[in-house]
Amino acid sequence: MLLVLDLFGTLVFALSGAAAGVRARLDVFGVLVLSCAAGTAGGILRDVLIDAAPPQAISDWRYLGVSLLAGTVTLVGYPLLARVRAHVLVSDAAGLALFSVAGAQKALAYGIDPTLAAVLGMLTGIGGGMMRDVLLAEVPTVLRAELYAVAALAGASLVVITHALHGPPVHAAIAGAILCFGLRLLAIWRGWNLPVARPPRGSDDDDSAPR
Amino acid sequence: MLLVLDLFGTLVFALSGAAAGVRARLDVFGVLVLSCAAGTAGGILRDVLIDAAPPQAISDWRYLGVSLLAGTVTLVGYPLLARVRAHVLVSDAAGLALFSVAGAQKALAYGIDPTLAAVLGMLTGIGGGMMRDVLLAEVPTVLRAELYAVAALAGASLVVITHALHGPPVHAAIAGAILCFGLRLLAIWRGWNLPVARPPRGSDDDDSAPR
Amino acid sequence: MLLVLDLFGTLVFALSGAAAGVRARLDVFGVLVLSCAAGTAGGILRDVLIDAAPPQAISDWRYLGVSLLAGTVTLVGYPLLARVRAHVLVSDAAGLALFSVAGAQKALAYGIDPTLAAVLGMLTGIGGGMMRDVLLAEVPTVLRAELYAVAALAGASLVVITHALHGPPVHAAIAGAILCFGLRLLAIWRGWNLPVARPPRGSDDDDSAPR
Repeated sequence: MLLVLDLFGTLVFALSGAAAGVRARLDVFGVLVLSCAAGTAGGILRDVLIDAAPPQAISDWRYLGVSLLAGTVTLVGYPLLARVRAHVLVSDAAGLALFSVAGAQKALAYGIDPTLAAVLGMLTGIGGGMMRDVLLAEVPTVLRAELYAVAALAGASLVVITHALHGPPVHAAIAGAILCFGLRLLAIWRGWNLPVARPPRGSDDDDSAPR
Repeated sequence: MLLVLDLFGTLVFALSGAAAGVRARLDVFGVLVLSCAAGTAGGILRDVLIDAAPPQAISDWRYLGVSLLAGTVTLVGYPLLARVRAHVLVSDAAGLALFSVAGAQKALAYGIDPTLAAVLGMLTGIGGGMMRDVLLAEVPTVLRAELYAVAALAGASLVVITHALHGPPVHAAIAGAILCFGLRLLAIWRGWNLPVARPPRGSDDDDSAPR
Repeated sequence: MLLVLDLFGTLVFALSGAAAGVRARLDVFGVLVLSCAAGTAGGILRDVLIDAAPPQAISDWRYLGVSLLAGTVTLVGYPLLARVRAHVLVSDAAGLALFSVAGAQKALAYGIDPTLAAVLGMLTGIGGGMMRDVLLAEVPTVLRAELYAVAALAGASLVVITHALHGPPVHAAIAGAILCFGLRLLAIWRGWNLPVARPPRGSDDDDSAPR
């Protein structure tokens, strides 16, 4: 089941990477590379941190295959995508949910401490989008977006709590993914923007352009 | 003592990350995420390189707690900060000093070769600021700033040399941190700018805008 | 022989990093740091992924020495470089070729599965240039350039295939490096640009500025 979650997460993150690449006017090959980077970065980060070498996304060809598939589908289908930006946001939210849950479960399977497993789940979730945005020289969504890391942490925590209560892992994964995905989409759609801290007037930073 | 150095380094780097986030007009949550990233990246980089898995910043909740504390304090207190930019620079220099020293000492404790331990100390020191700047899509301070990596290497080397001479590690840590912090602040205040290499006239690069 | 390939790859990637730093108007020290980052990032990435800790680029001083040498030579010699940009492109292509081959051979020597070894070779090859461009807050060459990752994968695959056929590793390395270098330079010189996918007209993304 971990493999299914991981591959689905790879697929949707790769879709978000491919759509972001199309938006950034990358060429066909750049779109495919960005698909692979976004799809596999979260899982590679997790596997390096829990010392599961070599990372599964590198040792198992299906990860790269799924990423390339997502890139190709996006390239072929982009004229049909009426709103590329919405496509990036929704597939990114789905990837966040699936990877947070898969990350927490893999960490638990490796005998990692429960609270730590929730943090690792969150990192797995945010890693792919972070890599995608850093490669495009943009400030990552996780730093700007509504409840991004909070949603990942909530989903991963639900998995860890269910595990501690000896609940069935499949239900835990479904519930955690729905919680994370729902929180993130709600935050986007309702515009739950957190307040922005501004430097005080008269400081030497007032002239700096907003990013 | 290593833990105290590490936690203080995390605190001050997290402060620099939070202040940089406020400058970049991130929302409240983005500031907290950037605090955590800047506070923990150097230590995670070190632990991955010396293969101490899982990295301590992930396995010990105090690292995240200290980072979130620094972020919260910055968010609450920023109207009091007359000069946010100076705040970023000074806390960054303190983090550089503490992490360079802690990195070198942890590497020595893991039985790493002395010269290598000094390099690992430098990498631990520059990792947090590098992560902060890359996430904000800026060219990292280490590439632009006065004597940045040199100061980190000097502090870490002093720790390694004192260790080789069987000197007391506490004194070594204090002396190394003061050396690094002092060098960096001196370089900022006196404006020790190194010369900038410019491509020759008539080259095809003259029209590229300076960064 | 692996060491020779690795050190040559470090040298030419460090040259590309130094030249890119000169183009970006970094100061002397920034150029040296960027040389080291570009020269060592690919090998460190490979060693972390195959769990060869600590990475050789950190444990062996010659890697840093060669990187600093390349930076110094570039700084001293840049007025002689008529076209800095061409210099970046050619040394980058040479580093790509050498590291792809060295990465694949080291992975094979560690008993990694052949197809996986080819992927690791590609990652070793693209890692240095990716780090260089991310640190300069630019979109990496691998996302924009003609046949970049394809050339790396071709060179690494040739090494793996020759290994499977029990061919001599020295010949495999030379043939793989020539294949990768040749493909990349051909793609640059003949301008083999892949088509760029554009979002459909009337979408909400049309107004976004091209990057």
